[in-house]
This record gives sequence, structure tokens and C-alpha cells, in this order.
Amino acid sequence: MALPTDPSKPRLVAGLMSGTSADGVDAALVRIEGSGPDAALTLVAHDTLKYTPTVRQRILACMGSSAGNAGDITLLDGYVGELFAHTLLHLLKKSGVEAKEVLAVGSHGQTLFHHPTQIQYPGFQVCGTLQVGSAAVIAERTGITVVSNFRPSDMAAGGQGAPLVPYLDYLLFHHRSRSRLALNIGGLANLTALPAGCELDGLMAFDTGPGNVLMDLTAYHYSGGKQAFDPDGAMARSGHIQQALLAALMEHPFLAVPPPKSADKEEFGAKYLDGVLARFPGLPGPDVMATLAAFTVRTVATAILEFCAQRARYEEIIVSGGGTKNPVLMEGLQMALSKLTLSTSDEYGIPSKAKEAILIAVLADATLHGWPSNVPAATGAKRAVVLGQITPGAGFFEKE
Amino acid sequence: MALPTDPSKPRLVAGLMSGTSADGVDAALVRIEGSGPDAALTLVAHDTLKYTPTVRQRILACMGSSAGNAGDITLLDGYVGELFAHTLLHLLKKSGVEAKEVLAVGSHGQTLFHHPTQIQYPGFQVCGTLQVGSAAVIAERTGITVVSNFRPSDMAAGGQGAPLVPYLDYLLFHHRSRSRLALNIGGLANLTALPAGCELDGLMAFDTGPGNVLMDLTAYHYSGGKQAFDPDGAMARSGHIQQALLAALMEHPFLAVPPPKSADKEEFGAKYLDGVLARFPGLPGPDVMATLAAFTVRTVATAILEFCAQRARYEEIIVSGGGTKNPVLMEGLQMALSKLTLSTSDEYGIPSKAKEAILIAVLADATLHGWPSNVPAATGAKRAVVLGQITPGAGFFEKE
Repeated sequence: MALPTDPSKPRLVAGLMSGTSADGVDAALVRIEGSGPDAALTLVAHDTLKYTPTVRQRILACMGSSAGNAGDITLLDGYVGELFAHTLLHLLKKSGVEAKEVLAVGSHGQTLFHHPTQIQYPGFQVCGTLQVGSAAVIAERTGITVVSNFRPSDMAAGGQGAPLVPYLDYLLFHHRSRSRLALNIGGLANLTALPAGCELDGLMAFDTGPGNVLMDLTAYHYSGGKQAFDPDGAMARSGHIQQALLAALMEHPFLAVPPPKSADKEEFGAKYLDGVLARFPGLPGPDVMATLAAFTVRTVATAILEFCAQRARYEEIIVSGGGTKNPVLMEGLQMALSKLTLSTSDEYGIPSKAKEAILIAVLADATLHGWPSNVPAATGAKRAVVLGQITPGAGFFEKE
Repeated sequence: MALPTDPSKPRLVAGLMSGTSADGVDAALVRIEGSGPDAALTLVAHDTLKYTPTVRQRILACMGSSAGNAGDITLLDGYVGELFAHTLLHLLKKSGVEAKEVLAVGSHGQTLFHHPTQIQYPGFQVCGTLQVGSAAVIAERTGITVVSNFRPSDMAAGGQGAPLVPYLDYLLFHHRSRSRLALNIGGLANLTALPAGCELDGLMAFDTGPGNVLMDLTAYHYSGGKQAFDPDGAMARSGHIQQALLAALMEHPFLAVPPPKSADKEEFGAKYLDGVLARFPGLPGPDVMATLAAFTVRTVATAILEFCAQRARYEEIIVSGGGTKNPVLMEGLQMALSKLTLSTSDEYGIPSKAKEAILIAVLADATLHGWPSNVPAATGAKRAVVLGQITPGAGFFEKE
């Protein structure tokens, strides 16, 4: 192989991802054609390998500042590599695609710890991020060239190593004459604002605040642990928005900070929620849920109005993530943002479930072509850099 | 850059290494010309950054099966990256070489844990090895392309991830008409046997047993902790070899195992030594030391006779490692191997101190040219593989 590869040729690239919830491995296979963030993308196939409780426990035991040790982390690295390789091989088989047809696979790995803030060590300020899932194992089992370790490159260049999704949002949704917003509603919610005709460095991306996290905590609490979320927003729909509670929630200091900014899950966690609810004793559960749905909607709408609207007249908002499955949330967004066309990424061929794995495939493709794929305006990096490390696969050194 | 690069062009490549003793970072800058294991090599400069006790403590706290945690290991990864980058920049400055003149830097990293044996995890047999020292940090601080994580590639292919030095021994010492032995005497001693005219896959490499480890333990013990080794072999020289003790030491079961084999430091550690010495109470310290020097010599000579001599008539043995500084050891080897010419790697332009960093530079060069550099006969891998991962530096994607 000669690097960079010819970007005019269509190529198949895979992406592998396991999120901080450690539920399983998401895999996506995409066809990419064209150059850099202007490339066109088609999802060929996607799949998820759900972890068994035993496997999940192994991973969680090494996750977090004081978790794990060198021995367990070393073996987990090899193990997650095997799981990722297995997931990819299964996806290829299911899709009838042979490994040698695939240019590369991007692997995000499993994050065990992410510390973007500088700490003083003897002689140097240091930060770090640790993703396991041996790229050598994935390359050996599949024969495919692996690109991995994306976040450390951005952090070495002074960035937070996150968010990385703006590159994909740009690639999928930027438009010459339409100004668009891409909103992802996961545990937290993050927004990428793409003014009409903007370049990659002209986008804005930041966390708006809570996504589903507070609603999920509430569903769990009122169901006595039986429900992890509010299915179809049924509980929210049966309640009434409590304006005083909503106003109290909107006092959260994170909301007033101008972007770029990223929230920690802890900032919108159980402790925060309990603190606010203590000021409103005796509220019925459905009213709390309805208000929390309104809180997510309001924080998104306010963020758009305060931080984005002065730069462009946005026409469309494209929503992805688990939040798209909650009609109360989606209807609330449509009402609050009545001048915008509301759609989901699924309508653009990007299932919410597969979006992060697609992102990792796109980042791998960018690296093999020598295209920087962090967005300094979003991560805070000093410059745009080519992300990640290349583990050569079987065909890597063959002449094209 | 186009991969593979043109091997007919001479190039500068650097290597960075920190051993399991965690004393400091060894850096070497070499000029390489030619293809694969037949390339020619010249050492341009080398240097060591010695760790302060505080830094060493930080590293040792994360080293070993049950040491460290995800938080400390993550930050240590960033920190060791900074230390490695700093060492390289210092070496370049000292040598008057600019970063852009250097094709690549190989970084071994700092091993925290190495577990080549397979362990059963749910669904998969796994093994692993963990080296810290962020390649992204080294690439960003120096602008130079980094090749790192060499051992996992060999292990993913079924090997032990060690020894890697046979590739360098071959490159430096293989000869069309002379059969040579390369012996490294570190804590343990390892031998690479290079029959005249052999190819890379025709060499034999294995640990012969103890190097300096037992002598160092004895020096420490009899000096009340004041001496870490026996300077100039003075203590050994003042004693007499005790034949009964020597015979008892030679009973160690490792010595009879046919190669390939690698010893664990524990197998020739304090516990083993104390066990044997308990059978010979009251021996004077100098006699113990003299006998241990003879033990190292005898194990090397026996290994050559039993495992190597039937394949070729060796003419020369080239010694490297700390053991070359012990004249009792060197004289003993010359006597035991009286038909061989004894020389040191220093006489071939390879200072013992720099040998491992030179190895890492050579491995990085091999990877960028697509040459496999593990030796399956030495590591037990199922096949020869291109080792490591490439982190693109500033000039990586420039057209040549």
C-alpha cells in the first residue's frame, strides 16, 4: 500500500466502538468516496455484540481513576481486542464482505479513564486517556489494517480529546446553502452547528447539558429499579410541567458558560437532581418526569438561541441518539424550535445506534489519507492534527 | 510520505528504550542503509536520561501484576511520553541533527506488565503486554513519526513477544563465511547463534541462564547494601571456585531444557540462590562470588556445546551487556571457549549501553519498510510479522 491512498476511489472502512456504559461493541461498515470532510458516506451494515454481565463486569472492574491494576488492564487489553475482532468478523460474514475488500478498520477501543486536565508531574504537566482493545490483536485476527488511539493525538496537541463527532456531523450534514444543527441526545446532549457553506473549522460544537440522564434516573427511581428509562415518554406524557422546578433546574451554572464546553456526567447526576428536587417536596413522579423532559428541550433551545443564532439562520435540526425514541422529547423540541425542520439522523441513513461506530470508521479513513480530523474549535486543541495510530494489516505494504 | 520508503536511501532513525529496571531512558540515533536484516548500520549518537528517584518511584508504583490503577497508568502513559520526547530532543540537539532529518523514532516504551502465557477469559484465551509512553505525545513534541508497541504484534501472532534482539544480532553480526555467536550478559544471559551464511530464520536465540543477577545479589548482600555489583570482578578474583557448589548450581532444571527457551528473573533470583547456598554453610563471600562467575561462564559454554555446536563450527563470540565490564567473567569465557575469538560489541561500534535503543531504532525502520522483524524461532510466533504501530509525524504524508 502507498500512503496516502487515492481518495477518488470508493473504499470500504469499518468502525468499532464500545462506549463508557460498556454495554457491548458497536460495529459499522461504510462505503466512503471522495476527499476529507467532503467525502460521501453510505452505511453498508451495522451490528452490535452485547456484552454478557460477566464480560461487562470484567470491564467495569478496570474503569475509573482508582479501578484495576497493571495485570488486569494488560489482559483486558488483549481480551477487548479479541471481542472487537470477533464482532468485526461476524459483521463481515453477515454482510458477505471479505476482509481483503476492507481498506481499514477504525477501533475506538474501550475507555478506562479519560483525564484531559493537566496535572503537575516532576518536570512536566501531563494529561492522558486510556483506551484498551489491542490493535495488534484486531489486525492479526482480521488481517485488516487498524487505526486506533484517536483521542491521545488531540490531547497531545492541547485538546480535550473530545468531542470527535463534529467531523462526522460536518461530513454528513454540512450544506452549501442550508444552515443546519446536528443534535445528539445520549446521556448528555451535544450540538454541532453548521452554518451554510461553512468549512470544517467554521463549525461550533458543544454539550448543551442533560440528554436522557436525568429522565433515566427518575424512571429507575419511580419504578423501584425496574425501568432504566421512560419507554415512549409515557410517564412524562402523563404528568404536568412544573414551572418553578423548571426554573430552578435552569439555574445550573453550566448552562450559562459560553462554548466550547463539555459537561461531565457527574454535573447532571443523581446528586445534582436530588439537590434540586429537595426544594420541591411532594411532587408526583410524572410531573418530575414531564419537567425533566422540558428541561432537556429548554436547554437545547436556549443554547441554540444564545450561542448559535447570531451566526446563521438555521433551517433544520437533525437529531440522533436514544432521545429520538422519546416522542415527548421530540414533540417538545419541535414546539420549542418551531421555525426549524426537525428530522432524525435515521432519515439520513444513519441509525442512532450505529452513529459512533460510523464516526470511528470515518476517522480511520481520514487518518490513512493524511487528513486532520479533530476540530480544534470543539476540542480546544492548538491545531488540527491527523489522529491515531496505524497498525499495518496484511495488505498494507502491497503496491497498489 | 509513501510507504514503504525507498530502502536504497540512507536514513536516520532514532530509538528510545526504558528497561524493566526503570533506571532511565536510553536513546540512540543510527544511520541505516540497505534492505531488511541485510541493512548496514552506523551509530551516530547515544545518550541516557537517568530517572530521579521520584520519577523511578512513580514508574515502579505501576509495575507488576497487581500494581497501579487505571488513573495512575493513564497519566504515567502521558508522563513517560514526555520523558521519552525530552530525551530524544536532547539527543538531537547534542548531535546537531534536526527533527525533520529523522525518518522515524522507535519507542519501546516502559513495560509495566508482560504476560505471554494464555489465560482463559469468557470465550477467548488471552495474553497481553503493557508498555506506556504515549506515542502521540512523542510525535507531537518532536514532529517525528513514531513506531511503537512492538511486542503485542508478535504475541498476537502466537509469540512470547520476546526476545526481539535476534533481529539486531543478525543485522550486525551475520557473516557469509564465519559462524558467530552474539552473547548479551545482562541480569540474565542470552545467546544468538548465527551459522555462516544463515538467513534470519536460520538463527537460534535463547536465554542461557544467569548473567549478572546472582553476582549482583551477592555483592549487595556482602557489602551490606553498599554495592549493587562487584566492581571489576574484584571480589570474585579474590576467591576460589568451589566445585561442589558449582555442581549444585548446574543442577538447575532450566539448563537442561532445549531451546527456544526464556528464563524468568525469578528463576535465578534470591530465593533460588539462598536455597542452594543453604546446602554449603560457611563459605567465604569471595568464594561464593568466584563460583557464581564460574556458573555464568559454565552455563554459557555448556549451552553452546549442547545446543549450538552441532549446527556450525563457531569461530567468534561477540559479547555485550554489563557483563563485558567484569574481567573475571570475560577471562573465564575466553578460557572456557578457547577455540573462539572473544570480542565485545563495542569493538563493532555498538556500545553495550546503547544496544537496546539501537535495536528499537532498527525495528522501527523495518516496520516503515514493511519488513517482518520478529524471529519466530526465537519468540515462538506462528509467523514472521511486521511489528508495531505507526503514529504519523509532521512529514509522514508529504510526497517524497
